[in-house]
Amino acid sequence: MPHIRPATANDHEAIWTIFHAVIATGDTYVFDPQMPREEALAYWFGAGTHTYVTEHEGEVVGTYIVKANQPALGSHVANAAFMVAPEARKLGIGKLMGQHCLEEAKRLGFRAMQFNFVVSTNEAAVRLWKQLGFEIIGTLPGAYQHARLGFVDAHVMFRQL
Amino acid sequence: MPHIRPATANDHEAIWTIFHAVIATGDTYVFDPQMPREEALAYWFGAGTHTYVTEHEGEVVGTYIVKANQPALGSHVANAAFMVAPEARKLGIGKLMGQHCLEEAKRLGFRAMQFNFVVSTNEAAVRLWKQLGFEIIGTLPGAYQHARLGFVDAHVMFRQL
Repeated sequence: MPHIRPATANDHEAIWTIFHAVIATGDTYVFDPQMPREEALAYWFGAGTHTYVTEHEGEVVGTYIVKANQPALGSHVANAAFMVAPEARKLGIGKLMGQHCLEEAKRLGFRAMQFNFVVSTNEAAVRLWKQLGFEIIGTLPGAYQHARLGFVDAHVMFRQL
Repeated sequence: MPHIRPATANDHEAIWTIFHAVIATGDTYVFDPQMPREEALAYWFGAGTHTYVTEHEGEVVGTYIVKANQPALGSHVANAAFMVAPEARKLGIGKLMGQHCLEEAKRLGFRAMQFNFVVSTNEAAVRLWKQLGFEIIGTLPGAYQHARLGFVDAHVMFRQL
């Protein structure tokens, strides 16, 4: 059974491997596909960011973060981001982390969760977040420069906790 | 006539005075109303941020910033923020800066502009951005903790350039 736990500095290498593989395709995240390791880890372990990893059969196969989406007067709404190792797809790791994240966000006192930028062509993600109770509350026309498809829409998704 | 120009370090004091007055009321920006000066100026003059001031009768009466709303693959969409000194309201400074900002954003090569968080009860702002061609593309329920009204909605607004 996959197991989710808080990340530590010992997970840096595994997280970077996943992070790099995920952004390199330029079809789901806004980050520069060539984003350097130190910048990626600084973001993933930033101040106020709660970082988790999923272990499966002794390997780290996924990672997610949850944090406030806005400062002070908007800090009751959480934001989160998820990455699954390409070789661990289709195992339900994303869904497991999504469910864990919603529980963690509640436990941390957040009242809602917002995704600012779900790439519309990332159908697996859109489907999963809808399954987990998120709604598309708005669509940003052409806001994402997809590596293969050019400018495509991105969704803002939201869920009360 | 009010005149808009790029801000310099000489404008720090004037910008801080406006910034502090604007956030202190806790009814339009997400920032902590007690946000310290150095943090505010670091944000307003952040890397990749273009900062402007409006002078009127020898005084700085307004300031705005424009920058990319997302990194790399989302960096063709601009984000902007505007502040007008309380004593200079109703002079059309906000509208003047809005128009200037749209021109600057085009000149800088942005394809669109997005406001992530327009507090729904800030009717003057919502009206102005609609007047300048922005649409509400989504509404975040209860995403802003208003100093007097409690949790109120915030709008995501968007305009092609």
